[in-house]
Parts: sequence; structure tokens; C-alpha cells
Amino acid sequence: MATLKVRATLKIPSHVPSPEEDSEQLRKAFQGWGTNEGLIISILGHRNAAQRKLIQATYAATYGEDLLKDLDKELSSDFERAVVLWTLDPAERDAYLVNEATKRLTSNNWVIMEIASTRSSLELFNAKQAYQARFKRSIEEDIAYHTSGDLRKLLVPLVGTFRYEGDEVNTVLAKSEAKLLHEKIAEKAYNHDDLIRIVTTRSKAQLNATVNHYNDEFGNAIDKDLETNLEDEYLKLLKATIQCLTYPEKYFEELLRMAINKLGTDEWALTRVVTTRAEVDLQRIAEEYQKRNSIPLDRAIANDTSGDYKSMLLALLGHDD
Amino acid sequence: MATLKVRATLKIPSHVPSPEEDSEQLRKAFQGWGTNEGLIISILGHRNAAQRKLIQATYAATYGEDLLKDLDKELSSDFERAVVLWTLDPAERDAYLVNEATKRLTSNNWVIMEIASTRSSLELFNAKQAYQARFKRSIEEDIAYHTSGDLRKLLVPLVGTFRYEGDEVNTVLAKSEAKLLHEKIAEKAYNHDDLIRIVTTRSKAQLNATVNHYNDEFGNAIDKDLETNLEDEYLKLLKATIQCLTYPEKYFEELLRMAINKLGTDEWALTRVVTTRAEVDLQRIAEEYQKRNSIPLDRAIANDTSGDYKSMLLALLGHDD
Repeated sequence: MATLKVRATLKIPSHVPSPEEDSEQLRKAFQGWGTNEGLIISILGHRNAAQRKLIQATYAATYGEDLLKDLDKELSSDFERAVVLWTLDPAERDAYLVNEATKRLTSNNWVIMEIASTRSSLELFNAKQAYQARFKRSIEEDIAYHTSGDLRKLLVPLVGTFRYEGDEVNTVLAKSEAKLLHEKIAEKAYNHDDLIRIVTTRSKAQLNATVNHYNDEFGNAIDKDLETNLEDEYLKLLKATIQCLTYPEKYFEELLRMAINKLGTDEWALTRVVTTRAEVDLQRIAEEYQKRNSIPLDRAIANDTSGDYKSMLLALLGHDD
Repeated sequence: MATLKVRATLKIPSHVPSPEEDSEQLRKAFQGWGTNEGLIISILGHRNAAQRKLIQATYAATYGEDLLKDLDKELSSDFERAVVLWTLDPAERDAYLVNEATKRLTSNNWVIMEIASTRSSLELFNAKQAYQARFKRSIEEDIAYHTSGDLRKLLVPLVGTFRYEGDEVNTVLAKSEAKLLHEKIAEKAYNHDDLIRIVTTRSKAQLNATVNHYNDEFGNAIDKDLETNLEDEYLKLLKATIQCLTYPEKYFEELLRMAINKLGTDEWALTRVVTTRAEVDLQRIAEEYQKRNSIPLDRAIANDTSGDYKSMLLALLGHDD
């Protein structure tokens, strides 16, 4: 947990008010003329997942209302989405995001891939349980039903595998599987069973060794060799999957860069990355961002957003209000 | 839990000795001239999983030895396998059986299918954790690596899915998916993506509704329609998967019938069914067996086995020693 905290951006005050005090302040923020957005940010934007959970429980017990529903009622647009996603318990948030991504109008295979690949095995399992509790179906059946062809072939085992997380690496296996990956990629057999098997089932440490060996032995990084057709959604997703599994900070940096540089910022991607990573590794992602873009992530986000939405994102990035 | 107990055959004495007493008696059974097999059966054959776990822990603390290793050293052949498999914690036993089934010399896709399909979602998850703790790899990577082609296509999502276990049934979906299954089976497209998706990801209640609708609408039970080629391992396994998911007692009855009627009993199958089901639903399986074979299961097993092995199986079937 110590390493996680070092890489997080979330800032928690040295003296945290009791859940009762926080609930009371939030209730006040909703009342009277207009909502006090600053107060909401100053509370929720500086509490960790366990603290937010306690606030939600206390709020429900005290006022007989669901805090998330009240936030939904009082806030709007990008600010609302950021506050609600952030306030959700991480497993419930992942379940919510995957469900949204399997619906026709908000369909997004990237979100499914990202959650399946960047969460720890236990976090993904918790998301599966939260999904069933909320939607009365399994995450696997909804993803399998929503997808088809090569995308289904990749995403179903990606989300299904309870990946081993030990550090052990089998070097002989890494070499033979690097060779196999190279052969299949040279043949443009990007959807080959064994290629998908290796990516979707090997431990991250093992896959990383395989990818390193690929680079050493065949002169090119695997992601360069996969950049042959930038129009092919499956191929782009396959490349991103390998990146998420072996170098997630780089994946998130690229995602943020595209979201911010886009004509009309992609607020959904921006909100998703900031709310899902602020307690995990947003510090590392911000370092990658600055290295690649020569501007600090918080300044880039501040330039591209405004109002309460901007304040909320900056709070999660570790700014004082 | 109450329903499980009613369907189990395991008999536990009304006064269960303490783990210390049981450990001491087991230790005695190993000492002196020859092993006291009857004593071992009278203890381990009448303790549930929680009690056996306590005995193992107490034995290790008292004698500094692993009970399973001592059983392995003192016993032999079919009797040894029955006692060791039975004594193992259910999750560790499943992990052990799947690992064995992915090894070349003891390869067995049926065991993988059976464990993936007949365990509850949480039992399967526990087996995955036990597998990682013991073998330092994921169950998914070993199964995917061990298999290929259609068998891999079926088995990987089968073991990967954390299946929803609620009772809710979507009737509209059951009808449309029954139609889809019928179309694919009529086209002999037994390995079709959607057919595999339905079988491997839908809840057991939902799949059962689909199979019932198939029967009502198309005049044949789905397993009859899948019996077109008894030489095709994939097709046989697919049929058995559907049976395991919707009518496991019938699957186990058939497995026992084949194991017992075989020229030279199939002790591995017999031992596996009795040790893995004695605490779960062996009573129901025995009822199915008697209905289909006009002989009680215990008598059929007694006719076909002998010695300590026979005594151990009969103990697990609920006989007094």
C-alpha cells in the first residue's frame, strides 16, 4: 500500500473530519440557494476510497438518502460525471464503466480492455462481484454478447483470466513465446490463437520478459511491429492491450495526450483516467506526461478545462483548493 | 448449506473427537507393524472439509510433519489416491486435479471441463487461488497452453467466466438463444462463436431455460442433437458441458456407470466422483444411478472394488465401518 500512495496524487488533510461532519457539510452544500460546488470538491476531492465509503454510509443512515443520487440531482454535465465517478467505490466504478461500455449508445471496447488489463487480479475480481450485484448478470456474458469476431476473441479471455501476479519469470518460455509472437506478427496473423493466448493469460511479469526478449532478438519493439494498420480497431486494441499489461503509465499518458489535444477535449477519457488513477498511479502518469509533452499534466488540464470541472480534476491531481 | 448436507452422503459421528485426538490416532495408525488402514478410514472417512483441515493443521503442529505426505508414504495405489484426494481441502483438490489434467501423461480435458462446469462460481475462484499458491501460475494459462483449437476455444472461457448465479431468467433471451443454438447445430457449426459464448457465459438458470425452450420448440433435446458423431472429442465434450451446467447429477451418473461397467473399472473416475461429490450431492447422484441402473450405487461399487479402497469409498458413500 505504501508504494501505491507514493504514486497517487490524491491529497488528504492531516486532520480528516469525521464522516458525520463530512455528511453534514455535504448536506449543507446541497441546500439553500444554489449548490456549493467548492465545498463538495473540498470534501470529496480529498478523501480516499475507504473514507468516501464511510461518508456514503453515514449520509444514508443520517438523511435516508443516497449520496450518489443527491450528487446526480444537484450537479450537472462533466462536473457531475467526475464527482459521481470519483465518489463511487473503485470496484463499483469499474463495474459501472464496463456496463456503460457494453451498451449500444456508449459502446467502448477500449474501456473494457483498459479495465481488464490495468487492474490487479483481485481488483478485477471485485469489479466482477460488484457487476453481478448491480446488474444481475456476469461481466463476461455482457462483454461476450456485446462483442464479436476478433474483438470478442481478445476481450473475453482478457477479462476472464484471473492472472497470476508473482514475479517469477520462465526465461525459456519467454524466448519461445517471443519467437512465436514474432512469427505470427510477421505472417500478419494478428488474431492467431496462440498470440491471443499469450497476451491474455500470461502473468504481467512473464509477458514483460517476453516483450523484452522480442525487442532484443528481433530488433523492433513489438508495438512498433503492430503499428502496420492504424485503421484496424482490433490491431490498435491489441497493441494497447500489450501496453496496458506491460507499461500502463505510458498507455494512460497517451490516452491523456489524445484527450487533451483533441479538437474539443475528450472529457470522458480525461475524467475516467483522473478518477480511476488518482488513488493509484496518477503521479507516475503525470511524470510520463511531462516527459513526453514538456508541460506539466496539471497545467495542460487547467488550460483545457474550466469551472467546477477543472477545480475537481485539479483537486484530484493534488492541488489545494 | 442445509440443502447441500441433505444431498451429501458423508456421515459424521454425533460426537466428533477433537483434532488432537484424531491426529494422535492417525499417528498411531502409521506406526508399528503395518499400517492400520481401518483406523484411517474410520477417522478421515467421517470428517467434513473443515474438520479435516483442522486435523491437518493439528497434525503438522504436533508432529512437525505433513499429514498428506505421511498418507502418501504409508498407503498405496487406489486406496492412497482416494484417501489423499479426499483429505485435501476442496479448493486444493480441484487445483491438484486440474494441474494433473494439464500434464502430458495425465492429460484429461474432461476433468478440466467437469471442474469448470460443476463447481459454484466461488468454489471455482477458490480453486484458482489455490492453483496459483501451489503452482505459481494461473489455471487459465496452463489450460490455454495445454489445449488448442476448438477444445481451447471452449475450455478457456468456460474456466474463465465468473458465472452469475442468480435465479433470474430472461425468457426473450432464452428463446432467441435457443433459436441461435438450433441454427448452428443444424448447420453443424458446433464450434460457432455464439454457441460457445452462450454455453460458457450464461448463468446456469438462464442456460437451463434456453435448453428447455430448445426442447419445447424444436422437438429434440439439445444433447440428442449433439449426438451426431460419437468419435469427435470436442463434440462429446460440448454435450457433456451442457449437461454439467444444467443437470450435473445426470452427468455424474453416466460417468459412474461408464467407470463401473468398463472392462477393468476406471478407478480414477470412480475415485474422483466419490471424493469430490461426497460432501456435495452424491446422494442425488446415487438416486439417479439407481433409477437408471436398477442397482444401488453402493452395491455396484462394492461389486467392482475390493479391500481398503472399497472400504474407503463405501465410507464416503455413508456406510458405517
